[in-house]
Amino acid sequence: MQFSITILGCSSAIPTKDRFPTAQVVTYGNEHFLLDCAEGTQIQLRKYRFSFQRISRIFISHMHADHFLGLPGLLSTMDLLGRTTPLYIYAPNEVIRFIESFKQLVYANFKFPIEYRIIQEKYEGLIWENEQLEIITFPVKHAVPCHGFLFKEKLQSRRMKKNAITDYLLSIEQIKLAKEGQDIELENGKILPNSSLTHAAPHPRSYAFVTDTAYYPEIINYIKGVDLLYHEATFESGLEARARQTFHSTAAQAGKIASLANVKKLLIGHYSVRYEDLDILLREAESVFDPTELALEGKKITLEYESRTEIA
Amino acid sequence: MQFSITILGCSSAIPTKDRFPTAQVVTYGNEHFLLDCAEGTQIQLRKYRFSFQRISRIFISHMHADHFLGLPGLLSTMDLLGRTTPLYIYAPNEVIRFIESFKQLVYANFKFPIEYRIIQEKYEGLIWENEQLEIITFPVKHAVPCHGFLFKEKLQSRRMKKNAITDYLLSIEQIKLAKEGQDIELENGKILPNSSLTHAAPHPRSYAFVTDTAYYPEIINYIKGVDLLYHEATFESGLEARARQTFHSTAAQAGKIASLANVKKLLIGHYSVRYEDLDILLREAESVFDPTELALEGKKITLEYESRTEIA
Repeated sequence: MQFSITILGCSSAIPTKDRFPTAQVVTYGNEHFLLDCAEGTQIQLRKYRFSFQRISRIFISHMHADHFLGLPGLLSTMDLLGRTTPLYIYAPNEVIRFIESFKQLVYANFKFPIEYRIIQEKYEGLIWENEQLEIITFPVKHAVPCHGFLFKEKLQSRRMKKNAITDYLLSIEQIKLAKEGQDIELENGKILPNSSLTHAAPHPRSYAFVTDTAYYPEIINYIKGVDLLYHEATFESGLEARARQTFHSTAAQAGKIASLANVKKLLIGHYSVRYEDLDILLREAESVFDPTELALEGKKITLEYESRTEIA
Repeated sequence: MQFSITILGCSSAIPTKDRFPTAQVVTYGNEHFLLDCAEGTQIQLRKYRFSFQRISRIFISHMHADHFLGLPGLLSTMDLLGRTTPLYIYAPNEVIRFIESFKQLVYANFKFPIEYRIIQEKYEGLIWENEQLEIITFPVKHAVPCHGFLFKEKLQSRRMKKNAITDYLLSIEQIKLAKEGQDIELENGKILPNSSLTHAAPHPRSYAFVTDTAYYPEIINYIKGVDLLYHEATFESGLEARARQTFHSTAAQAGKIASLANVKKLLIGHYSVRYEDLDILLREAESVFDPTELALEGKKITLEYESRTEIA
């Protein structure tokens, strides 16, 4: 199952000539989830060739202009392209007023339903799941109510080893028990230890998206051990006071959170317009946590399954 | 005085990977005028290195999403960049509701005033002028109230020929009269014909912006003889029925208008997303009117003074 993250925008509030404000696509299997939807998101989706119709759910971290202004344009284009399937929007309450008043203004009569899923201030918990994946939200610390999102695969049942079924002519009931980890007793009384029949499912992969936030270790509980953490890094440490004042983080603080949460990899973004060259932010984060990568327009990171050592 | 037009976006409603929806900058001297403000306009302004603070006036042709959705982002960024000078917005009435409800939503308290200049349906006439330039609006034919804009230099007074003042030691009053085109009588009774003292000011330059509109020859009265006409050309002639139904024009119709109005050059744009290659539209317009150019992202057209033959 493909599990990847593509950066559509990595700038903070003011865009630059090569950095759009925040938007990302999380692709899981055939489905695209959109994380924030800044102005220009639909243009970036076209540029990086994402199907608009495969976007089922949009998650808005908070109601600052550089995180949601792409919604009316994207929705209008989805309608022009003939969408009829529902679009789910997870966001603070104000999103309803914003979209519905836009629709009124232009007399829009979209042919697809918009299903609002309002995230209340301070809400934490599961907001969506299917058989493979769950999405959890948690509050972060910003000037207005703001949430992070965790995409986490579920642990799948154990997988049958090659030939195990045909070697022992296992029944459907026996296969079910084996996948649950049980040993199987054959009709002749022989016990097959589970380890001879199955191996563990791959380790569940996970991605956490954290923007915009001041340094806030309370989130560690949610993001502990994730394969990839996106954490905003608007400023360098020399501007820590400015970061505190604007409820943003420095690159070193992003590294600190990644380190405390023991994540596998850190991805930083939401850069202040003052940084034409992003090396200073990368080096600063790396000095606290390694490996760190820069979020850059069009960058795609695929989460691979970890190879797992099976204890026989 | 510089008089130029820069294309920021030339797509119709659905953007493509290299075409943003409609926005243009008209630069006259030190001032920038923005024509329409689609989603992504602020990003394009950054890319093509326009100073946001030199944009004094924004003109919105009509309230379809692909012509105004860039306003909240642009205004927010102007505020973040410290703007304090007024911004004038010429647009249909709904623009007030759109911007003010956005400001409420994000608790924006812009440090610069927004001065709305509402263009009523069917209004035609002067909407702004200074000593050199006037801007005139006129209705076009679209599904909702929609206006074109004409930027027209004023005829300047005649210019003194080199050495005319010192050769005859003209007084300030005499210079004034000469610039008005009068002959000058010297104290010794000698009459200096005006043509020996002055030459005509350069021919006033003009630019007309016409989007979105069905074929509508009623506009010719306004755009007659302009140096450059931007006219939408959403479709090719084979889709004329579709153009009529959606109140858009074909490339041939744009050429026809340019020809009837006897303009000096035609610039087409607002291309349907179906045209990856724009040659078909260019060739079609050119078959009716020459010279025609394609509007393309980042293209800048400078209007030069015509050399004028003076009849002595």
